[in-house]
Amino acid sequence: MKSENSKNVPMVVIRRLPRYYRYLGELLKQGVTRISSKSLSEKMGVTASQIRQDLNCFGGFGQQGYGYKIENLYYEIGEILGLSRGYKTVIVGAGNLGRALANHAGFEKRGFRLMALFDNDEAVIGKKIHGLTIQPMDHLEEFFEKEGADIAILAVPKSSVKEVADRLVALGIKGLWNFSYTDIDVPEHVAVENVHLTDSLMTLAYKLTKEEMGSKE
Amino acid sequence: MKSENSKNVPMVVIRRLPRYYRYLGELLKQGVTRISSKSLSEKMGVTASQIRQDLNCFGGFGQQGYGYKIENLYYEIGEILGLSRGYKTVIVGAGNLGRALANHAGFEKRGFRLMALFDNDEAVIGKKIHGLTIQPMDHLEEFFEKEGADIAILAVPKSSVKEVADRLVALGIKGLWNFSYTDIDVPEHVAVENVHLTDSLMTLAYKLTKEEMGSKE
Repeated sequence: MKSENSKNVPMVVIRRLPRYYRYLGELLKQGVTRISSKSLSEKMGVTASQIRQDLNCFGGFGQQGYGYKIENLYYEIGEILGLSRGYKTVIVGAGNLGRALANHAGFEKRGFRLMALFDNDEAVIGKKIHGLTIQPMDHLEEFFEKEGADIAILAVPKSSVKEVADRLVALGIKGLWNFSYTDIDVPEHVAVENVHLTDSLMTLAYKLTKEEMGSKE
Repeated sequence: MKSENSKNVPMVVIRRLPRYYRYLGELLKQGVTRISSKSLSEKMGVTASQIRQDLNCFGGFGQQGYGYKIENLYYEIGEILGLSRGYKTVIVGAGNLGRALANHAGFEKRGFRLMALFDNDEAVIGKKIHGLTIQPMDHLEEFFEKEGADIAILAVPKSSVKEVADRLVALGIKGLWNFSYTDIDVPEHVAVENVHLTDSLMTLAYKLTKEEMGSKE
């Protein structure tokens, strides 16, 4: 029922859910069981009315005068985000970034199951990262036949990302988490999230530049 | 003059500039010198009118019927973003992620100067990454006294990010690029960009879940 509702939730609200999830998880760890939208808004630096609006999109878990029951809210947001589905994840590209991502503590805690790493560089093939042996790229087809995967993390150079993405799409991948410094073009049914690190750093540079110019006046 | 204008440009437009910069850079590499807002819009998957609106925020570099002169536009966007300023950058936290970021090819190409890496782990101190020797955290004060830095990349665990950020702010850091899985609280004059990787992965999971539920009906 709630999942049904979530279909028409604007993407801008969806993008805020992981942050709610993170804050609520922290509160749970601290042993807090209930929170008002006002207190949550102070912690998160957004308005209480935005919090109420956002959470109302999913049927509203709050009770007038009592606030939100954190455990329920945390669970429901996790369900909406699909975290209990245990998505099978592979990493393509086991260079510095791919290996760093393999060791990223947050992912498995959030229910993503890292199944395999692939690379075409002889220097890294066979090495063990996070308990998994890096496999050559030509094992990809066999792996998908036997195990399958839902999400592929693309940590390959820009020059090969198109070819790799096409190959994964042909193998039935459902989602691509793209770290290469280029946008990729895939069929509509494949979900894509881009992490363009350099774009983010340039935005930071802009903020600095603006601050410097502002303070000169 | 143009930089003057850019002060009142909405952040949502600013966030699109790195992407323009990336596409224009690609076109330049291919030897293209001029492009119409229509062609650029087809490449980038946004409307031509949005492109015209966005670029008009900075005084408008296009000429009716002739399109944009790519080199000028590329240069001006780079100036607005402050890329020619050669911001001095340090990395705090030289674990997997910090080391991957040190080797990230895109940053130096965009004018960021990586000056030093710091860590408090004896196992990595003294190792060389990207031509730089990883220094112990207690060298931080001396380094800032001698060299100074504009931007610090925070690749430390969540548990120590607050302490590290406070220390950097006291040393006069101007911008923090935060990779730890938590928001940080710094004075207004310090610019912050967060890269919450797990948030991005959760958004991808949502898209997959939505797609799966949609296709069942």
